[in-house]
Amino acid sequence: MARIVMKFGGTSVANIDRIRRVSELVDDEVKAGHEVAVVVSAMSGETNRLVELVDVLDGDGDQGGAIEDEYDAIVSSGEQVTSGLLAIALRRRGVKARSWLGWQIPLKTDMAHSKARISDIETLAMDPSLKDGVVGVVAGFQGVSSDGRISTLGRGGSDTSAVALAVALKADRCDIYTDVDGIYTTDPRIAEDARRLGKISFEEMLELASLGAKVLQTRSVELAMNNNLPIRVLTSFAQPGEDNPGTIVCNEEETMEERVVSGVAYSRDEAQITLLRLEDRPGTVAAICGVMADANVIVDMIVQGRSRAENAANLTFTVGKRDLEKALKALEAVKGDIGFEDIISDSKVTKVSIVGIGMRSHTGVAKTMFDALAKRGINVEVIATSEIKISVLIDAEYTELAVRTLHSAFELETA
Amino acid sequence: MARIVMKFGGTSVANIDRIRRVSELVDDEVKAGHEVAVVVSAMSGETNRLVELVDVLDGDGDQGGAIEDEYDAIVSSGEQVTSGLLAIALRRRGVKARSWLGWQIPLKTDMAHSKARISDIETLAMDPSLKDGVVGVVAGFQGVSSDGRISTLGRGGSDTSAVALAVALKADRCDIYTDVDGIYTTDPRIAEDARRLGKISFEEMLELASLGAKVLQTRSVELAMNNNLPIRVLTSFAQPGEDNPGTIVCNEEETMEERVVSGVAYSRDEAQITLLRLEDRPGTVAAICGVMADANVIVDMIVQGRSRAENAANLTFTVGKRDLEKALKALEAVKGDIGFEDIISDSKVTKVSIVGIGMRSHTGVAKTMFDALAKRGINVEVIATSEIKISVLIDAEYTELAVRTLHSAFELETA
Repeated sequence: MARIVMKFGGTSVANIDRIRRVSELVDDEVKAGHEVAVVVSAMSGETNRLVELVDVLDGDGDQGGAIEDEYDAIVSSGEQVTSGLLAIALRRRGVKARSWLGWQIPLKTDMAHSKARISDIETLAMDPSLKDGVVGVVAGFQGVSSDGRISTLGRGGSDTSAVALAVALKADRCDIYTDVDGIYTTDPRIAEDARRLGKISFEEMLELASLGAKVLQTRSVELAMNNNLPIRVLTSFAQPGEDNPGTIVCNEEETMEERVVSGVAYSRDEAQITLLRLEDRPGTVAAICGVMADANVIVDMIVQGRSRAENAANLTFTVGKRDLEKALKALEAVKGDIGFEDIISDSKVTKVSIVGIGMRSHTGVAKTMFDALAKRGINVEVIATSEIKISVLIDAEYTELAVRTLHSAFELETA
Repeated sequence: MARIVMKFGGTSVANIDRIRRVSELVDDEVKAGHEVAVVVSAMSGETNRLVELVDVLDGDGDQGGAIEDEYDAIVSSGEQVTSGLLAIALRRRGVKARSWLGWQIPLKTDMAHSKARISDIETLAMDPSLKDGVVGVVAGFQGVSSDGRISTLGRGGSDTSAVALAVALKADRCDIYTDVDGIYTTDPRIAEDARRLGKISFEEMLELASLGAKVLQTRSVELAMNNNLPIRVLTSFAQPGEDNPGTIVCNEEETMEERVVSGVAYSRDEAQITLLRLEDRPGTVAAICGVMADANVIVDMIVQGRSRAENAANLTFTVGKRDLEKALKALEAVKGDIGFEDIISDSKVTKVSIVGIGMRSHTGVAKTMFDALAKRGINVEVIATSEIKISVLIDAEYTELAVRTLHSAFELETA
């Protein structure tokens, strides 16, 4: 007998039939003798519907300050509905079950409404209920802030709910059911020969998640890594009886396969900003990073290139595409103070990355990458590296070509 | 400065534009210097949508027992969304506001999920917030049961939430905004000359509400009466600046108008059951009432008529149309035990009632009523009376004719 946390995303609970299918999958684990907690997202489309209602009213004026507390009260209702419905579906299959809302557990968070962080999960109420064989159906994505209001963990927060709950409940594993059957070497819609990985390390998954692979939410992987809790990613769309091993995300030592590069990720959510003829004196880059931080814009890849003019250089960096306008506005305002001549920007760029813990011990990975891209005539604008990844910024037109090129350059199609 | 509770039903918050209009009406009261709590229903259609989701899954089997706790968690989300949206709309008008869910107030109820009764409303948290000038936007219809689960008060429960909250907050008045501009002498869709009443007593309103006038929920009127809290019923659809006095529901002494009959109500939700040749021995009627109570069926009008056969009588009574099948099944099962020969039933009946506190001191009201009906050839099947009302059960085909006949017989069209 084990204790398991299962998590089902929006497409897995999209309608009544899908919820029934999920109740079967849960029932299978109960029948196997396990104690089960299930974390559910809102039915797909529901969160967007609610966010649109909020956005319309939010746009009515500038008065009245922040509304994130109310946003949370509204948007969290989606998961509330799903958790109740799944509890009913389970009961009607003869499985004991009850729903748990964030404030009922309680799953406590800080006060950062709409992007709250979990501070503590109490298991005093849930633990005995699970031990009694009652499946706990938990509304994901939500908690309760220290002032007793509903908080939400930000988009994709249900993954984080699931992993955090699994840690708090001392679960043996956390199974994340989604609409794909595991983690792939790259996006199968781009590279037909992309291959499902049997195992992947936390570190690699973390890079892939933050580099644009949208299967798992970054914070959930961090949390699993910090607590050494294995996550299994698998599909809720398999037919009953069908083989569905998924991908295990676990400690490096437990990943058996010897690979240099594990996957190719890409993100179209980037925009490039270049400040032309920036005055070259100590502290200007820091000042610009400060301006971006004040505007709540995250700066990603940064590269500084010396221009031919004396005491001046161009500074190029990337920001999220959605933040581009905000970033440009903030920079325009400090043009004179910081000292640069012009700003150019480009949102038709893609960040393509290769990820692999094998890079730590293997040389020549960068050379293979740049040779392969150059051979296809793909220009690299900006480069960023970490111990286990290399990212390049390229013209968005070349996205698919670059992904396929790197996928075969590192022979990811072969096990 | 007064403290006011305002309540808005589903059609009043049906969409974003309606919610904006409600925020104006609330703003008017705030600008007048009042402390305001607002109780809102779900956007119209939303509760039905959620109930349908529940019903589909509930129909999957007989296992797993009651699901009312999950029904409550699901269905209460409708009011949760509206309260958040109205709080945002108010802030964007520059009005300080926050939403309150049942468990946050807390509005405590018993454990009778889906038809819970309020046991206590704490004002320790809300009171200082209102005093600070923050409009409290309360999700109606919901509370928290003694085991910390969400409970709901049953259909129309938002009226009850509003009145109970007004009592707990020691509000000066409770304004119930709806889609009609007050309480009418009868249904204006049936009698064109129906007239809005300026005032009506609690007792009369209570009879009208329980007799089919759907403007106010019965329990909310009881609660207002027991606490002598005046309710004003008015429309949220008036144009800004338009006169909108509504109808005041208050203590008998404060209703100035001298009327014998105040209104004519009707209900098509009735069904008639007759047990033929019931054995005439002590306790049979009680036994039948017991059978109905065990089946959770409410028996309304009862009349016993002696048949020509010795030691046998016919017993006629009415039940809610929705309970008819359940009632017939329960009766069929005890046919031999209790002793009657046959059951006949009729669901094409309507209950038409006249209501007025003046009946207490005026004679001849019944005569006027039966004369008027007889003159139009309307047969009366069953009669029931109380101190301030007379109800008759008639063939449903005559509903409109009977309503109009009684409305003019008591000259309700003239003030």
